[in-house]
Amino acid sequence: MKIMLTVSYDGTGYCGWQRQKNGLTVQQVLEEAVEKLTGKKTTVTGSGRTDSGVHAKAQVAHFTTDATIPPEKFYLALNAVLPADIKVVKSRLADESFHARFSAKKKTYSYNFYFSDVVLPLNDRYACRVEEGLDFAAMTLAANALCGEHDFAAFCGVGSLVKDTVRTIYDVTFKKLGGGFSVFVTGNGFLYNMVRVIAGALIAVGKGEITVGDIESALITGERNKAFKTMPANGLILEKVEYL
Amino acid sequence: MKIMLTVSYDGTGYCGWQRQKNGLTVQQVLEEAVEKLTGKKTTVTGSGRTDSGVHAKAQVAHFTTDATIPPEKFYLALNAVLPADIKVVKSRLADESFHARFSAKKKTYSYNFYFSDVVLPLNDRYACRVEEGLDFAAMTLAANALCGEHDFAAFCGVGSLVKDTVRTIYDVTFKKLGGGFSVFVTGNGFLYNMVRVIAGALIAVGKGEITVGDIESALITGERNKAFKTMPANGLILEKVEYL
Repeated sequence: MKIMLTVSYDGTGYCGWQRQKNGLTVQQVLEEAVEKLTGKKTTVTGSGRTDSGVHAKAQVAHFTTDATIPPEKFYLALNAVLPADIKVVKSRLADESFHARFSAKKKTYSYNFYFSDVVLPLNDRYACRVEEGLDFAAMTLAANALCGEHDFAAFCGVGSLVKDTVRTIYDVTFKKLGGGFSVFVTGNGFLYNMVRVIAGALIAVGKGEITVGDIESALITGERNKAFKTMPANGLILEKVEYL
Repeated sequence: MKIMLTVSYDGTGYCGWQRQKNGLTVQQVLEEAVEKLTGKKTTVTGSGRTDSGVHAKAQVAHFTTDATIPPEKFYLALNAVLPADIKVVKSRLADESFHARFSAKKKTYSYNFYFSDVVLPLNDRYACRVEEGLDFAAMTLAANALCGEHDFAAFCGVGSLVKDTVRTIYDVTFKKLGGGFSVFVTGNGFLYNMVRVIAGALIAVGKGEITVGDIESALITGERNKAFKTMPANGLILEKVEYL
């Protein structure tokens, strides 16, 4: 049977989602947990990679097993062997046709900021420091310019090998919280570092270093503006994956 | 000259505030940072101890130095040599009569909870898991019963050596947040583990395990009720210290 998992993790101590030789990853920890329970080596397939240090509130993954643990109880068994920084929030039986990556229709990430002129230890693990005084009106215009189907080549981290850089962004929304704000970005898929570069571009607009026109030009020319900094991993959270 | 510091720290990796032989503490890290800047061994005196694993948003401390760094810039110099999980938010010149501990008039702690039936890795570092369905009306009555001058012997952790267990609590307030709540407790001083035991007692009332009358009895008899569990350190934050 195929089991779908919703997984939450604090990515600080991990070299991202995907299994690799030189460092512990979330996928490896989950696969070892499944093996501990079922006695069999199993691949746990995620909806996509998250980079080193990136967090997830609700990553989705699947695996196939012939274990007799009821699917909707599997999360409890897994949590008993998982470390405190990776937990399965939900498990359920999935259709045989379900694939965590290929069936995914939409993903939402949040990039989180707190206002301060000093690094604040209680905020900095899941958010990035920024100074107050950003121009949210200009940032909202820039956010709107990013929505729709575009070639996001200019918003892609160095080192990406993907050829097709066209993606659709459905929504970019700011949520102000006490002492900071989050940018929620929903799209049909994301290029390497794309949300972190978008967050950096929006901050550059908010600081007045570039204009909304510079965002629009980058979408047309595909050339990354020097002001589009890649924001650090710790502020990024995979919020949800949708399959409907 | 005497310098007053406001210090924020993530206590997860530290054996509390106070310097000790068998483990790294926040005080030791701060004293070593001051020594690095001034070249002299210096005692950094805090408003009080925080226990192993407890966090602080705004602990207050003082030290004496003849360094020529301007007092209001000292925090920047210290932050340059401090680790990411301990930062000085503010520094200023203090009167020679000022003492971080003896001059303190009020302290406020928060104890933080999130609602979930599973440990959530992105919440669990600074809050404690609890299941939904608590009786907040009863908890508010219990919170009110705790306010005032009382003998808090029944709300004190095992191992305390203090003889006078009378303290005044000025305020116990609940703040509901998305997905959880915090209990803010302001008092003129706190016994060992006192806020963590109060948090445990309030949860016991919220779950219907004990009544408000049991809280009132404990304040009179000084006998700790078995239902008053000491909540874990990770949910506790020293919010502020007042000197007015």
